[in-house]
Amino acid sequence: MTKNEGGQAVTERTLVLGLDYGTDSARALLVDAKSGETLASAVAPYRRWAEKRYCDPARDQYRQHPQDYLDALEEAVSAVLADAGEGSGQRVAGLSFDTTGSTPCMVGEDGTPLALKPEFAEDPDAMFVLWKDHTSVEEAEHINKTARTWNTDYLKYVGGIYSSEWGWAKAAHVLRHNDAVHAAARSFVEHCDWMPALLTGRQGLADMPRGRCAAGHKNLWAEEWGGLPEEGFLTAIEPRLAGFRETFARETLTNDQAVGKLTAEWAGRLGLTEDVVVGAGAFDCHMGAVGGEIRPGSLSRVIGTSTCDIMIVPEDELRDQTVAGICGQVDGSVMPGFIGLEAGQSAFGDLYAWYADLLAWPLRERARRDPTHAQEAEALRDKMIGMLSEAAARIEPGESSIFAIDWMNGRRTPDASQTVKGAIANLSMGSDAPRIFRALVEATCFGSRAIVERIREEGVAIEEVIALGGVAQKSPLVMQIMADILDMPIRVACSEQTCALGAAMFAAVASGLHGDVHRAQSAMGAGFETEYTPNSAHRDHYEKVYNEHYKPLGTLIENQLT
Amino acid sequence: MTKNEGGQAVTERTLVLGLDYGTDSARALLVDAKSGETLASAVAPYRRWAEKRYCDPARDQYRQHPQDYLDALEEAVSAVLADAGEGSGQRVAGLSFDTTGSTPCMVGEDGTPLALKPEFAEDPDAMFVLWKDHTSVEEAEHINKTARTWNTDYLKYVGGIYSSEWGWAKAAHVLRHNDAVHAAARSFVEHCDWMPALLTGRQGLADMPRGRCAAGHKNLWAEEWGGLPEEGFLTAIEPRLAGFRETFARETLTNDQAVGKLTAEWAGRLGLTEDVVVGAGAFDCHMGAVGGEIRPGSLSRVIGTSTCDIMIVPEDELRDQTVAGICGQVDGSVMPGFIGLEAGQSAFGDLYAWYADLLAWPLRERARRDPTHAQEAEALRDKMIGMLSEAAARIEPGESSIFAIDWMNGRRTPDASQTVKGAIANLSMGSDAPRIFRALVEATCFGSRAIVERIREEGVAIEEVIALGGVAQKSPLVMQIMADILDMPIRVACSEQTCALGAAMFAAVASGLHGDVHRAQSAMGAGFETEYTPNSAHRDHYEKVYNEHYKPLGTLIENQLT
Repeated sequence: MTKNEGGQAVTERTLVLGLDYGTDSARALLVDAKSGETLASAVAPYRRWAEKRYCDPARDQYRQHPQDYLDALEEAVSAVLADAGEGSGQRVAGLSFDTTGSTPCMVGEDGTPLALKPEFAEDPDAMFVLWKDHTSVEEAEHINKTARTWNTDYLKYVGGIYSSEWGWAKAAHVLRHNDAVHAAARSFVEHCDWMPALLTGRQGLADMPRGRCAAGHKNLWAEEWGGLPEEGFLTAIEPRLAGFRETFARETLTNDQAVGKLTAEWAGRLGLTEDVVVGAGAFDCHMGAVGGEIRPGSLSRVIGTSTCDIMIVPEDELRDQTVAGICGQVDGSVMPGFIGLEAGQSAFGDLYAWYADLLAWPLRERARRDPTHAQEAEALRDKMIGMLSEAAARIEPGESSIFAIDWMNGRRTPDASQTVKGAIANLSMGSDAPRIFRALVEATCFGSRAIVERIREEGVAIEEVIALGGVAQKSPLVMQIMADILDMPIRVACSEQTCALGAAMFAAVASGLHGDVHRAQSAMGAGFETEYTPNSAHRDHYEKVYNEHYKPLGTLIENQLT
Repeated sequence: MTKNEGGQAVTERTLVLGLDYGTDSARALLVDAKSGETLASAVAPYRRWAEKRYCDPARDQYRQHPQDYLDALEEAVSAVLADAGEGSGQRVAGLSFDTTGSTPCMVGEDGTPLALKPEFAEDPDAMFVLWKDHTSVEEAEHINKTARTWNTDYLKYVGGIYSSEWGWAKAAHVLRHNDAVHAAARSFVEHCDWMPALLTGRQGLADMPRGRCAAGHKNLWAEEWGGLPEEGFLTAIEPRLAGFRETFARETLTNDQAVGKLTAEWAGRLGLTEDVVVGAGAFDCHMGAVGGEIRPGSLSRVIGTSTCDIMIVPEDELRDQTVAGICGQVDGSVMPGFIGLEAGQSAFGDLYAWYADLLAWPLRERARRDPTHAQEAEALRDKMIGMLSEAAARIEPGESSIFAIDWMNGRRTPDASQTVKGAIANLSMGSDAPRIFRALVEATCFGSRAIVERIREEGVAIEEVIALGGVAQKSPLVMQIMADILDMPIRVACSEQTCALGAAMFAAVASGLHGDVHRAQSAMGAGFETEYTPNSAHRDHYEKVYNEHYKPLGTLIENQLT
């Protein structure tokens, strides 16, 4: 409490809310922007999603109902405010959102997701199309073909290949296959843009601001061609996209900018005040990189089932140059004043899970025949990666000659390819389960090295890795091998919630508590818990394996086998 | 019983004994050479071997005590005679041996294996060096180097590469490392040669006959250079081999020839008569091919942990030509009048066992931590290949794109290499255990195809496969895939004991019951139980995978990865 001039007690508004929407749940993090202290955090799962409604895994269809997002928002925010104590809501100055992406939803002229209207309440095509939904493979293919014939190279900032995970492909797919949705839709909105627009009363298409991050990385927005691609290109992708372009403002907001203040309605629903500033939203890894204290020269990696790799490069160092073969580069997508680069591996922890499932087959097959064994099978499966890691840690690098190629889920970067596949080679009769596991771990790190090499070849320096996410914090084995293979120090962030923390930092800047992102990072950063440094003998061994084994087999796979 | 001229009942001697010495046990098969009827069979394990004495698996040292062979002989023969009923021993006209090979033993001037003398009774170097003993890798390497500088190409009939599994390398190794054995040894004898020499009283080196099969396939005997390589070559391999050459007769015996008749002592010990003719011995697969009714144009394959592939080609079709890259070609090694060709795969069923062990790792690891789970782990391991085969049989060829290279245990033929290694490629997140198992099965059959292609390229026609051994009889999945991949019919022999049956056929010829091997096959052959014919759609699919995937990856592995 401080006192105003008249001596009355006034509430000092130094708290900010970071709101992080992941794949399965939303997290709220309440942070004091001045002290950096985390006062409370809470997680709210998506209820309909948890029931596996609106999804069809066989077709890779993953949809989320907008009501899940709203319910989770109220649940998570009320939980943190309750936890932080009475009056804490009055002390919140700003909030910002990060979400998965590209996760777009069809909206009417009023900007409301169609599934929030009674007639579309159960129509998956009227819901958010989750990032990992792959129903629009055909549409992405068509976008790529169309782009190759166009006189403007609209794919130059997204690595040259448009993905079925991104907005225009998903919009085209839904419009093509659902006449009712087509008839009602005037545009689509990314999840990270809808949340702030809704809360600030700027949901209507005429007024809805769009964030730079989603627009630039996934939806082909670029300064160079004056915003979105021209109408002719978009209708060549899909005639039903006619008129969508004009619903996007020419300008986009960077994450430090404010969208507005909470409406009275939302201030009431959330237990906050109408003075709360709402920042522009962005994708999770981009805000996560900021929460993990990214700086130029750092490669920020969220390492989980897959990786999302982010770098920032000062604008003047890369303005007219494109980094070939990565997912995207967008001025201001991570921090204002910097080009944001995005890359990633399609499978990282997922590869270990694949192998654990492979080894669990006999147990599960027995359980299929005799269900009394089911619990035992799953219990052992749960322990599998831990058991393998322990055994693999006892194997010296080079003790086995096995190596692998990590493309079991295709390759996101460098040079996206959905067709390349994985391999395990140099197998002998002595190749046992821990040795193969270790080779798979090494392979995921060789995949990381390919990304690092590409970015460096394109002229961007990388001096260290900042590791975020589950694998980073849980697996010293993987992180040490990664340090050895990348020949760089790796710092693991303390915070388990760097995305929400990054969102809180942006909320602090948007609401004026900090003058810029760098200051917010200094005041609010949670620091690093561990640093891995390369072992020079191991580095030399891995250098040889990478050049003499991983690369030649990768080339063969790419050119001849798949 | 028939009667002689004077009306007395005389015993008609139409029975023959086939004596088959495998890796773990000896089998005796008692057959009526006229009717083809099998009267009895018996198996006797090697007692000392079963206790794992004299072996050191870590060094790949595998030795067998000659006393094991003698004990097993008496046990197996007395068992079959007891089973066949009183007087059956009187009706036996001949017996022949087949054994594993090259399995040589150091002997003194009297031809007795040194380990049968009290001072060497416990010295592994004085025992038979089993075929799979790899202690002489260095010596084999030295033989290959020496051969490359010699003016006679002594390796031309053994595929151009001398193996550590063969006699001269093993003899050189034992002599180099054991002075006492060196001081006592005058020569070495192959297991298949020792048995008939011992039983006929021709054990002394001055008189001991050597069989064509072992001499030609493993010990560099060839008509072309007048028998064994010259003394200078053998002493260049190892000076301690000086004088060994003169202990080998210039001439070798083919399997249809007689070594002599049983000595009184052995007739007594075995319950047979002194009239019993003992045929020349040979290696198991060579006699097995005859027992499995091989003919020109058939590729006879003993398919078990590895494969041993045999062909016969009429002498005039191949006399001055060598088949490059196979294990060996020897005139008369299988049947007189035909060139015997030998090839094989280093791992076949062993590859499936390797994979089953891989999948059993979690169970065994749990059992290591908690021994109460040990029995459960092994019980599931025992069922693993059956479970995998069932599941793999439900997968259509081409349904998964996975393929593998079967060189986990190196490659025996074509073009022997101990350094090449195996691989599994085109893996995706959907690659589950049965799909990978199927790819491994296909890989072993692609390895078979490489042998078939090589033999054909060298001008030898192959029209069918005759399959013998455990995998052939137990796995319809494997055999059908092999038929599809080889694009040839495969006939599976009825007899589970084709090696012993082949030995019995040779005994029938050597003892005069049949005029030649072909007549013995006609009268005594057990026929075929199953024929697999290629499915043309699958054949086309596999043709493509073999040419477009298996071969390019094999080339990369051979040239770059190992």
